[in-house]
This record gives sequence, C-alpha cells and structure tokens, in this order.
Amino acid sequence: MGAAMKECIMGIDPGLSTTGYGFIRSDGQNSEWIAHGDINTSAKDAIEKRLGHIFKTTQELLAQYQPDVVAIEDVFLAASPAIAIKLGHARSAVICATVDRNVRVFSYSAKQIKRAVVGRGGADKEQVAYMVERLLNILGKKRSHDATDALAAALCHAHSQIAKIATERKSA
Amino acid sequence: MGAAMKECIMGIDPGLSTTGYGFIRSDGQNSEWIAHGDINTSAKDAIEKRLGHIFKTTQELLAQYQPDVVAIEDVFLAASPAIAIKLGHARSAVICATVDRNVRVFSYSAKQIKRAVVGRGGADKEQVAYMVERLLNILGKKRSHDATDALAAALCHAHSQIAKIATERKSA
Repeated sequence: MGAAMKECIMGIDPGLSTTGYGFIRSDGQNSEWIAHGDINTSAKDAIEKRLGHIFKTTQELLAQYQPDVVAIEDVFLAASPAIAIKLGHARSAVICATVDRNVRVFSYSAKQIKRAVVGRGGADKEQVAYMVERLLNILGKKRSHDATDALAAALCHAHSQIAKIATERKSA
Repeated sequence: MGAAMKECIMGIDPGLSTTGYGFIRSDGQNSEWIAHGDINTSAKDAIEKRLGHIFKTTQELLAQYQPDVVAIEDVFLAASPAIAIKLGHARSAVICATVDRNVRVFSYSAKQIKRAVVGRGGADKEQVAYMVERLLNILGKKRSHDATDALAAALCHAHSQIAKIATERKSA
C-alpha cells in the first residue's frame, strides 16, 4: 500500500473582528506548516464592509494557496444572541467564499479540535498552542490565538481523515 | 426641478429556511412591483450547502434584475443564540453575494420598515401586508410572508431616500 497523498488544508477560526487562518499540508500522520495569519476588520466600519473584507480576503487566500479542503471551527452556541449573530455573519462569509470557489468545507466543534490535537476535549488554550507548535515544528513563529486555533482546526481535519481511512481499511 | 430617477431596489427578508426577496422600481413617491419570491433550503442539508444555495441564488437574482441597491432586514437581536447564529449565517450569505457584485446594501430594522410602510413601528403583519399590496398594486398576487416582508424592506428604502432628499433640499 503506497503512502497517502498529502492534502493542502486551510483551517479557519472565524470572528468578525479577527478571523484566524492557517494552511498546512498533511497525509494525516505528517503535517507541514505552510502559512498562517489574521483577517482583521475595524469595529468602526459597517458590518457589510467588514463581511465584504472577510469574504474577499478568504477568496484571495483560496486563490493563492489552492487548498483541497477548508476546516472551519463551529461557533460557540452558548454565547449571547448579539455575539452569536456577529459570529454567524463572519463564519458565513468564509463559507460563502469557499462554496463560491467549489472547495469542500468541513465543520468541527472546539471540543473535536481539542480532542484531535491534544487528546482531550477539555484541553486549555496553552496546551493547544503547545501541540500546534510541536506538530507543525513552528516553535517561535509569531502568531495570534486566532491563527493558532485555525491551524488546530486544519490539524483536526488531517487527523480525522486518518481515523476515517483506518476505519475504512478495517471494514474493507 | 425634474422628476427623480427611478431606482431598482431589491428587498430581502433573510432566513435559513426561507429567504424572501422582492424587486420594485421607485422614485420614492411612486413604486412599481417587478417580482418577488422565496429562496428555500432544506433542514436535511448541511448548513454549508444551504448557505451556498442562498448565496448562489442571490447572485443569480442580482444578475437577472440588476438592482441599483439592496435593502435587507436586520436580524432580531432578542432571539436565542441558536436562532441568532442561523439568521446571522443566512443574512451574511445575502450580503456577501451583494458585495461580490459591487451592489450597495442598506440595513433596516423591522421597526424602521414598519414605520416607513405603515407609519407606525409597532404595526402588525396584516397591516404591513395590506400596505405593501396597496402601494405596489398587487392585490391577489400570491406570495409568502417572507416575500411580503422583503417587498416592505424595498419600500422602506424607497421612502427613506425620499425623506433624505427632502432633508437635503430643505438644508440646501
């Protein structure tokens, strides 16, 4: 059996003020860092302008890095309605840009991401950051919490696919 | 002073299951009905697929009717977080499609729309439906509540623009 193909995965941690993104290449077992960053919008601007910026920047990133799939963090359901509306708007802008370019998008809850990266759904931010750094060999590379969470979402997708392939082989 | 130019206005009442839309042509005083309808998605489908459908259908409608502006209803802030997230996602899909085609988008609260169409922010659904029917001369034309609310949003934009022009003339 040959080695699995490496996929380029874009991870996204959506937010209206800051949307973190990260690109990795992975066969599920070995993952390489490609890039990461933030899409920032100003609270001074109208929401339409802010969404337009998130949408267009996501389109540009998809065109630049040509990922095979996008892994996006699910929004936190327990937030207040006002926060939930903002998060929903930001998350949808990323999804629409992805759908517009015919790239498949997968959603993962914060718990699934933590479990896939650290092994426990209740892991804290520092543990996630430590594992992202170690798995991608990016010790000392400057990045925001949002970009770290985006890279974690990408790693979650990579690890989930390996688990899926293992299950398929077992039942084959 | 010549007559004001008539603008084509697309009104939107966003929702994940049903997004109502309506097109009118108006100079602020006289408004003509052009079209209305619903964009429906199935709760059986993944949210990514549903948003993609709303996004793409909005793009198609913008291409077909070429509106000058889009007037969209603001989401109701007092809903639960779970409902707020869904509404936020749906509303953002419409806004992103609009921004993508470089059409200006204006937001109006339900209260503003009722006040502009009926004269009272606390008007009920039936009064709004009656005035939409009367102002657009579409008695007996079959339509959903969502399409009615979308036409009301378009009328609200038309009336708001007239109010703005009147204020500008007064201060000129």
